[in-house]
Amino acid sequence: MRLPLSLSGGVTSLLLIGSLAGDVLATKLDPSAAKVRQKHQGRKALMRSLYGRSNQHPSDRWDKEKHHGQHAPPCEDTPPQEVDAPKENVWYGLTDDETANVARWLFGRPELNLTVSENAGEWDNTIALIELMRPNKTESIEYIDGNGPAPTRFAHVRLNNRATVDPYYADLLVGPLPISSNSSWEALEFPYTRKSQGRVRNVEPDGETVYSEWLFKISASIADITLDLWNGTAMGLENDTLDIWGIDPLWQDDGRLVRWDMYWNMPTDLFDSETLLPLGLYLKSDVTGRDPSQWKLLGWMYNDIFYETTDEFREAYWSPGFVKVGPNLDGAWAHTDQRGPVPPKDRKQPPLTVAPDGARYSVDTDRKYVSWMDFSFYISFNRDTGLSLFDIKYKGQRVLYELGLQEALAHYAGNDPVQSSVAYLDSYYGFGPYAFELLKGYDCPSYASYLNTSFYKSEETHTHVDSLCLFEFDADYPLARHSTSDYVTVSKNVYFTIRTINTIGNYDYMFSYNFHMDGTIGVEVRASGYIQSAYYANNQDFGYQIHDSLSGSMHDHVLNFKADFDILGTDNTIELTSVIPVEKKFSWNGNKTRNTMQLKRELVESEDDGRLNWGFNGQTQIHVINQDEKNKYGEYRGYRILPSSGTAHLTVQNSSNLANAAHWAEYDVQVTQQHDTEPFAAHPYNSQDIHDPPVNFEKFFNGESLNQTDLVVWLNLGMHHVPHSGDLPNTVFTTAHSSIQFMPLNYLVGDPSRESVNMVRVNYSNGSATEIETFGQSNETCGVRLSPIEDQLWSYQGDVIVRKFPYDPNDPFYETDTA
Amino acid sequence: MRLPLSLSGGVTSLLLIGSLAGDVLATKLDPSAAKVRQKHQGRKALMRSLYGRSNQHPSDRWDKEKHHGQHAPPCEDTPPQEVDAPKENVWYGLTDDETANVARWLFGRPELNLTVSENAGEWDNTIALIELMRPNKTESIEYIDGNGPAPTRFAHVRLNNRATVDPYYADLLVGPLPISSNSSWEALEFPYTRKSQGRVRNVEPDGETVYSEWLFKISASIADITLDLWNGTAMGLENDTLDIWGIDPLWQDDGRLVRWDMYWNMPTDLFDSETLLPLGLYLKSDVTGRDPSQWKLLGWMYNDIFYETTDEFREAYWSPGFVKVGPNLDGAWAHTDQRGPVPPKDRKQPPLTVAPDGARYSVDTDRKYVSWMDFSFYISFNRDTGLSLFDIKYKGQRVLYELGLQEALAHYAGNDPVQSSVAYLDSYYGFGPYAFELLKGYDCPSYASYLNTSFYKSEETHTHVDSLCLFEFDADYPLARHSTSDYVTVSKNVYFTIRTINTIGNYDYMFSYNFHMDGTIGVEVRASGYIQSAYYANNQDFGYQIHDSLSGSMHDHVLNFKADFDILGTDNTIELTSVIPVEKKFSWNGNKTRNTMQLKRELVESEDDGRLNWGFNGQTQIHVINQDEKNKYGEYRGYRILPSSGTAHLTVQNSSNLANAAHWAEYDVQVTQQHDTEPFAAHPYNSQDIHDPPVNFEKFFNGESLNQTDLVVWLNLGMHHVPHSGDLPNTVFTTAHSSIQFMPLNYLVGDPSRESVNMVRVNYSNGSATEIETFGQSNETCGVRLSPIEDQLWSYQGDVIVRKFPYDPNDPFYETDTA
Repeated sequence: MRLPLSLSGGVTSLLLIGSLAGDVLATKLDPSAAKVRQKHQGRKALMRSLYGRSNQHPSDRWDKEKHHGQHAPPCEDTPPQEVDAPKENVWYGLTDDETANVARWLFGRPELNLTVSENAGEWDNTIALIELMRPNKTESIEYIDGNGPAPTRFAHVRLNNRATVDPYYADLLVGPLPISSNSSWEALEFPYTRKSQGRVRNVEPDGETVYSEWLFKISASIADITLDLWNGTAMGLENDTLDIWGIDPLWQDDGRLVRWDMYWNMPTDLFDSETLLPLGLYLKSDVTGRDPSQWKLLGWMYNDIFYETTDEFREAYWSPGFVKVGPNLDGAWAHTDQRGPVPPKDRKQPPLTVAPDGARYSVDTDRKYVSWMDFSFYISFNRDTGLSLFDIKYKGQRVLYELGLQEALAHYAGNDPVQSSVAYLDSYYGFGPYAFELLKGYDCPSYASYLNTSFYKSEETHTHVDSLCLFEFDADYPLARHSTSDYVTVSKNVYFTIRTINTIGNYDYMFSYNFHMDGTIGVEVRASGYIQSAYYANNQDFGYQIHDSLSGSMHDHVLNFKADFDILGTDNTIELTSVIPVEKKFSWNGNKTRNTMQLKRELVESEDDGRLNWGFNGQTQIHVINQDEKNKYGEYRGYRILPSSGTAHLTVQNSSNLANAAHWAEYDVQVTQQHDTEPFAAHPYNSQDIHDPPVNFEKFFNGESLNQTDLVVWLNLGMHHVPHSGDLPNTVFTTAHSSIQFMPLNYLVGDPSRESVNMVRVNYSNGSATEIETFGQSNETCGVRLSPIEDQLWSYQGDVIVRKFPYDPNDPFYETDTA
Repeated sequence: MRLPLSLSGGVTSLLLIGSLAGDVLATKLDPSAAKVRQKHQGRKALMRSLYGRSNQHPSDRWDKEKHHGQHAPPCEDTPPQEVDAPKENVWYGLTDDETANVARWLFGRPELNLTVSENAGEWDNTIALIELMRPNKTESIEYIDGNGPAPTRFAHVRLNNRATVDPYYADLLVGPLPISSNSSWEALEFPYTRKSQGRVRNVEPDGETVYSEWLFKISASIADITLDLWNGTAMGLENDTLDIWGIDPLWQDDGRLVRWDMYWNMPTDLFDSETLLPLGLYLKSDVTGRDPSQWKLLGWMYNDIFYETTDEFREAYWSPGFVKVGPNLDGAWAHTDQRGPVPPKDRKQPPLTVAPDGARYSVDTDRKYVSWMDFSFYISFNRDTGLSLFDIKYKGQRVLYELGLQEALAHYAGNDPVQSSVAYLDSYYGFGPYAFELLKGYDCPSYASYLNTSFYKSEETHTHVDSLCLFEFDADYPLARHSTSDYVTVSKNVYFTIRTINTIGNYDYMFSYNFHMDGTIGVEVRASGYIQSAYYANNQDFGYQIHDSLSGSMHDHVLNFKADFDILGTDNTIELTSVIPVEKKFSWNGNKTRNTMQLKRELVESEDDGRLNWGFNGQTQIHVINQDEKNKYGEYRGYRILPSSGTAHLTVQNSSNLANAAHWAEYDVQVTQQHDTEPFAAHPYNSQDIHDPPVNFEKFFNGESLNQTDLVVWLNLGMHHVPHSGDLPNTVFTTAHSSIQFMPLNYLVGDPSRESVNMVRVNYSNGSATEIETFGQSNETCGVRLSPIEDQLWSYQGDVIVRKFPYDPNDPFYETDTA
């Protein structure tokens, strides 16, 4: 994990911009003049470039007055109603005081030998994370469903212990909270399949040394070649125009740690285009151990030819007939600004959605609780996976105890060693830190309301203002309708969404949880941002050529979600209902058979049968039912799980990159018995020990019964992405999407959307309407004033940082106002 | 085909309402007091109940002033710009004069022996259809692409020749138009696979007699039983409370025509709920030939027991121990009006989309031509399949010559003979006649613009005002975005939609064609309306019990679309690109193999390999490419076909109901060489001769090359629908949906959405925005006045009828103003 103390790379850039901070509101920077460069833009590298410290700015909420028609009776744009959640949110996070107290307490444990991050080097132990340890389900539901006490609070702490030749991350449990003389720490082991005192090795403890003492020096040794090929160097100098970074996870075979790195052109402008600028030269290093003098350069690869030594490569390079392949150069093609002929009428303002009557939902801002129509849920947010929802209730009954992302895999393939070896497991970088402030009117409708999110980093709490949005939306199609020769009836399709966008390096993942009036809950992910491309040479079996020397590197996105259903209680069962072709005889048809179809209903009895794929022609439906809860007609009440757009699991079988680190990616739908000891499908450091990762999902499957027991459904969304020219400069959300729906199945006695008044019946006859029934729906005439969205965007902030150690509760911004 | 001359059923109802027409605008009917009943509400029965004649009402367009803020500077809600299409729309339809002249000319052909519909009985020949014969593609593209003349116009005429013991429908070609002494008629045979002079037998020529002389008389013979069971009769009387209707297609085996009919309760209120009210008694008749005295009652079925004669059934019925099963009774559960507790805040007005700057697209209203941004297309509309789009161009190049629905199958299954035998082929009923006026603000956004559609029926042209809608919409998510630590950039996702909704009896199909700024074209179908249910007894293998004695009868919807791609010319090829797992050696990895993945690219060489299913895990992509058109990087330019939500083909194999009538339903994607002789996947009368239908899709597949030739892609959308309690009262569009996308694939050198100015870049630093770039997008401040949608709905009309024979061009409404 790379820390922001690095003297090279993005932080330097941030300091450059920081020096302009005094007049930022008055001056528009010319991005090309600023020459702001981000270095090491691979995902790992981004870790150290994203966050500097900044002045805290109060949330300068957009002036709602501007929304209103000034003279017409203005529509009432009311904010969400503030309500009191029925219970404490036991999943949300630590208070500032709790975090600070835990930090102080940890620094007071000599046995932990901790160093404050600001003072720490590569051979110090630091606190990587302090956040709430989510309580076990068993205790939580006693509290939320009954009269049990709120679960005892504990902190989940992660230490990055590098003051050793065998560096490791250590998960600790600290508590109970608040910190007192009764508080203690213990190794956190129970939620992981690997029992190793919560410790996972850190295979990249020396992030700075790898650059300063290894990659830059090696690169300097071939500066003659890099200058000849690209007129540039990657030597750790300010005027470097080349970058070097490579594979994740590292190769971990035979007890060795091997990395492949490659050269990239740095962007020449503001734009984050580095992942489109590969240069086609690769180097292999054995970086086992922490002594750079023991590291070994194992070879070079260029134009599909492998050279075992630098000398061999140089000799070939300067020999007659050596084939040089072209560079990828930054340019407008890689930039996201408007370009090209503006389409007809595009300068007219397009349609937009407005909320004339304001928010129709309620929020408990403190407890992070939301209710909309007959739905309610609590919000949880953590570093590893960002947003999760807990205790999702519909009509007063819990449908899901927990719904949230577990992990996102981006598995590449290519003819070169870097693309071939990359299989990002993004919780390593964490989703929480990359839930950026949402852009109003663009990422969410202009009338959305927002919540902040925070994450811990280096004894500071960073807050992304307005990084969760909540909004209702009227779909472009109705919920239901029917026409006859006498009347037509149509219901509006107004749904509710909570959204977060997490930008993990080059890619922007948009996660939306949608709630519909018919009781349906939807989970949707879309991907945009920059692709990670490949150098084109000899890569035609792995992608399309999409620019001069560029391949759209094929990759699979697989994103795992935990859906802990509780259908009318925790004891549930999976029923598979298939429509199957049959030849069949009937009482009314003598001895003749008919070719027709029928239903086949079967229960998934145990975890041995719990790993499922969406079947042929969509003929098999997956239902979560409660066999003890039949409706009045004797049908099991339940929810149906159905892809609402394409889903995908991993194409690669027994991936060399992943080994045992992501068995969750192998099927579409996987069902296990719920255990407090199996809360997550993955661990963010699975990439550090792929053969024996802290959470090996496969081990969840040990034949346990799935018949009327507490179940967890692990769902994969995803896309097989073979980027084409249209992915330049950015992949588009319109085509890169995956989603799934949970739909009531015989859950209620009729369609609950009939309860909404937002429907109409028009009776007609002989060419005229004869009756219009609007069911008492809102009937106002009012004006909405539309003003340029630009007015809102000047309040964009980035993040707000609160120091937790040293900590002054009366001055939480202590020592955070300088970079 | 049932005609509206019937004295029983829906037309009577229409007359009842018609008598109230004088004061319809002033009086709100109490629907329960009106006791308006629709009888025979199966799809066939609906044919005769939907259309009466009505007073013509001028299109009373909604007063746009009401849209505006009155005092704030009002936003400019401009209508679509009227433009001149570059060429005539050679696909749209006949002019009023052309239709009238063809009708008059036909009535002047003694050899056709035609009777005016109004005077015709079951033993007369009538004109079933006069519409434009769409020109052959070969001629059309010479005209639209080059300097060729507009194709000679012909009328496509369908006669319903019943003045014979062997009644048949006859397709004729009449022309050239305008009618002159050079005009003639000939049998239309070339577009059909069956060469039978364009003739198809009519297996139901005696729609009225079947009721008056057969079903009602049989039903009268068991009135003792129907009164005892349900306190009602089905005898053709005004006070009947029972209805009878049954299977489609009829059984057509062994040279016999056999029908199964069943009893239904009639609705007791306004609502169209009859398909929810089955009563569980079935009767089987042999109705071969046209002499009712030769027809035979073959038996009764009740509670899964078959009785060969009425006597046998009656004897059993009145015997001790006979098991009677309960009825399904109309009630609020089956009605679509609001009911139940109104959800919290639901009475507040929900969000809605507005178009502050009006329409950003252009329309040639006469030529039915639309252009939006860089897309343009011509609209075609016909009786059989409703809306089609022709000559869809993107950036000046045709992408699709034709895109439109071919047929919709709803194949049921059940333990009873009716559900088991129903497999509706909806073009029999026709989509065109059921494209009802759209409900503004509900079916389409309030700011949408509309076009009318017309269809021919009984010497009249019926016009559905505002039955196609056009609108732009701002999706609830952006088109593309990217965040970095220095800036965030987001593009709006504004797309364009043309929509029609066709209600075929109980079901409402919503068809939307969507156009996106990234060049993507989407085809979407959603289903709502009433399910056709089954009686529950013994039906548990075919559906859920969803009400008292009601089964949600399982069925497959399969809807076939023709997508005649022309990617940079007519010569195209299908390329399948799969992501496949591989074990592979690499130059840089010695002798070791790696488990990874790669692309497999293969061409579909001929129709022998042209019938495809979406494969395992979505790993195979289907591309339409032009091998002669590579982009500058050597990749084939093309479009990719991808399901954007679930699709389905038919579960049933070798369906007993369909025989050879719907082989198009058997795969997901089917590709044939384009031929002017294969314009449609189906014929609306395929149901009349299922073993030897006029268009047998299977015969399109005869091994022809698909390599760089003119291709047609036949795509199936659909759903496996196992209705549950939430389908009551109506199925919801949110879950019953299927869609597909056509996405540019290496078609342009970058993402074309970059051309739009509706994007923003916000630079930020140290917690403040430092630059906001809005690219010259519209920057107005203006007011939108929102007024109750009810104001618009009073203009709802139904349809407008123009008489074509006798025809007075100066008084086209001649003799149409009385019912």
